[in-house]
Amino acid sequence: MTNYDLARDIHQIGQRALQASRAMVTLTPRRKKAILEAMATELKANRDAILAANAIDVTNGKSNGLSDAMVDRLTLTNARFDAMVDGVRQVAALPDPVGKRIWRRQRPSGIVIEKRRVPLGVIAIIFESRPNVTADAAVLCIKTANAVILRGGKEAINSNRAIADALAAGGAKAGLPADGVQLIATTDRNAVKELVQLEGMVDVVIPRGGESLIRAVVEQARIPVLKHYKGICHIYVDAAADIDMALNIIENAKCQRPGTCNAVETLLVHRDIAEAFLPRLATMAAKKGIIVHADPVARQIIPDFTAAVDADWDAEYLDLNLALKVVDSLDTAINHINRHGSQHSDAIVTADTKAANRFLNEVDSSSVYHNASTRFTDGGEFGMGAEMGISTDKLHARGPVGLEELTTYKYRISGTGQVRS
Amino acid sequence: MTNYDLARDIHQIGQRALQASRAMVTLTPRRKKAILEAMATELKANRDAILAANAIDVTNGKSNGLSDAMVDRLTLTNARFDAMVDGVRQVAALPDPVGKRIWRRQRPSGIVIEKRRVPLGVIAIIFESRPNVTADAAVLCIKTANAVILRGGKEAINSNRAIADALAAGGAKAGLPADGVQLIATTDRNAVKELVQLEGMVDVVIPRGGESLIRAVVEQARIPVLKHYKGICHIYVDAAADIDMALNIIENAKCQRPGTCNAVETLLVHRDIAEAFLPRLATMAAKKGIIVHADPVARQIIPDFTAAVDADWDAEYLDLNLALKVVDSLDTAINHINRHGSQHSDAIVTADTKAANRFLNEVDSSSVYHNASTRFTDGGEFGMGAEMGISTDKLHARGPVGLEELTTYKYRISGTGQVRS
Repeated sequence: MTNYDLARDIHQIGQRALQASRAMVTLTPRRKKAILEAMATELKANRDAILAANAIDVTNGKSNGLSDAMVDRLTLTNARFDAMVDGVRQVAALPDPVGKRIWRRQRPSGIVIEKRRVPLGVIAIIFESRPNVTADAAVLCIKTANAVILRGGKEAINSNRAIADALAAGGAKAGLPADGVQLIATTDRNAVKELVQLEGMVDVVIPRGGESLIRAVVEQARIPVLKHYKGICHIYVDAAADIDMALNIIENAKCQRPGTCNAVETLLVHRDIAEAFLPRLATMAAKKGIIVHADPVARQIIPDFTAAVDADWDAEYLDLNLALKVVDSLDTAINHINRHGSQHSDAIVTADTKAANRFLNEVDSSSVYHNASTRFTDGGEFGMGAEMGISTDKLHARGPVGLEELTTYKYRISGTGQVRS
Repeated sequence: MTNYDLARDIHQIGQRALQASRAMVTLTPRRKKAILEAMATELKANRDAILAANAIDVTNGKSNGLSDAMVDRLTLTNARFDAMVDGVRQVAALPDPVGKRIWRRQRPSGIVIEKRRVPLGVIAIIFESRPNVTADAAVLCIKTANAVILRGGKEAINSNRAIADALAAGGAKAGLPADGVQLIATTDRNAVKELVQLEGMVDVVIPRGGESLIRAVVEQARIPVLKHYKGICHIYVDAAADIDMALNIIENAKCQRPGTCNAVETLLVHRDIAEAFLPRLATMAAKKGIIVHADPVARQIIPDFTAAVDADWDAEYLDLNLALKVVDSLDTAINHINRHGSQHSDAIVTADTKAANRFLNEVDSSSVYHNASTRFTDGGEFGMGAEMGISTDKLHARGPVGLEELTTYKYRISGTGQVRS
């Protein structure tokens, strides 16, 4: 296939999605629920075919030398398959944000203005090797009446095709407009570039994966990108912290799932509590296998800590490493976080309400915590039902991207012939 | 000045704005009100100096051959000066959106999550020749506790400097953090390019001006742009329209201020009403000096109409020209608008509620009207108090950009030591 043909094919996918999006705005909440339930049923009915397709991807991946971690991400076990189908059913049961009234005003002229949630239009999802994202992402878009274009990793192409086919077949049975869900079936890597330049067809692109994927998409995109760069999360142990609480929160935020974006990466400790706190931290770290990269002040107290280098303050370890700095004030802690953090999730542990309020106000992150673990940053934990990921942007969607964040709004104005004077 | 120095200077302006934004989040609503009132007072106290600076710009503009329209936009009359000062006072008196709670939830774990409005951070405004934008735009940013970087047209540089100096002096007297308002004083046109690439310092850039300015900014920007491309607004006269009402709305939407983005540019008329409606339209158009560019079907009824060419369906005339097409159905009208419109403001005139509802649901524009003039699309008319312009984007801000649209939100989570299980 020449690039000319690729560009034309992707353009046609965009045009079909745009057409589908015009039909999707007419779907009722009940209809969308029925579509999602039919998708779940169809996925389940095609379990054998989907798992067989996945087995081909896994075999190919192994013979192509994928790492064990990659093969694991690629593999659909029976349990993962069930979780995927359950996920579809859960989204079907969530409240529907489309059509929701944000406000209504009658103006002096007599016109009535309603601000209401509406679909964004066409959403493109670009993801890596986990095939379950095909279903997870598609159903969030359908629930919000958006047409969706999916582009998964090439190593999962057979799995993704089988899942997308089942979604489309289920959708068609229940009244999903044609092309409401499309998968880009070519593995040509230039397809992404063409896709993210479909101005006027695709309203937003959501890349889901590592930082290099996201940077590549942002670099090439001519349409808005909802993105998650990284999670460099901090916990600040204030002078007035309860030491047991701090240790418990740090252990949870570092160890419960170290590879997640809301795991803590840097610990800031007020100097007035350092003498009492750091020995307890050292004991916990040793027990849990945490490697502490400490600044000189901390190492005066615990010489066994590894010496931190400059790069540690900007590191997203995603494992059991932890950076540690002793700070002389709340201000220093806030400034450090605003400078080195990723505006994701940061916490203060303190009994001092005034210090906590300053921290919550002045740390410029999407989720700011007082006396709780950063691990709570999650659409489900926040009561949003489901999420498409976590945005580190400030515009449109900040933090967990739930159903509402996949919508926009419009103003509906009704009059009886009013004109402006 | 070499470009190296320019880049360094703009970078320093960005760094100072970022620093200022950290201090601005700590301002109370009362403090911000006092700052804006002090700015209004200081502007008024410097009336003579500002008007003298403006006179220099006007003299320079004339000798540089600016068009009369450009000179008019550049000129600060006494009345325009008063309106500018009044505008600052009006924004001071508006409700403050910062800190407003969007929702609050206690979760099963006991953590309490509050979603609250917070400033965006640093906003850059790039505008053309109207010097009053310096004050109008700055005060909306300050009201929402954002630091602002202003970059006006080079023909207004003396006026803008004088206004920005007065704003900064007034602000300083009332406790505005240093560098909360900065004006880029160089007229080097490369400054814009440097400014819109300040990733990590500037959170959003808002260009205010013609389409070519906006396209240039979008092309160069590495940070989000809130933009208004154009207003190609439609009125659809349905088969069930009240003809008098339709004529009245069309006259208002075309003639009240033809140069505005919410003026109507294209008229779609259902074929079943065309025979009765078009002669009345022709009479009104002749009386008002409207030049109608009509499709062949309409010209069969009124041969005097100018023959439309393809470009008319995509034209933003901004004057007394009007495109006209006869359509055979509501669906054709909706499809035409979704294809040729600019997602700005579009209206249906009809007594048929079902047709009106389909139009309001299916036309994908920020403001959709039933039996009212498109001219109402405006922050003030919508009850939003003031506006920074009208966005034709779908993400973050759609339609009038008021104070809320100049904010983002954060999640504040308070616990008593909770960890995730």
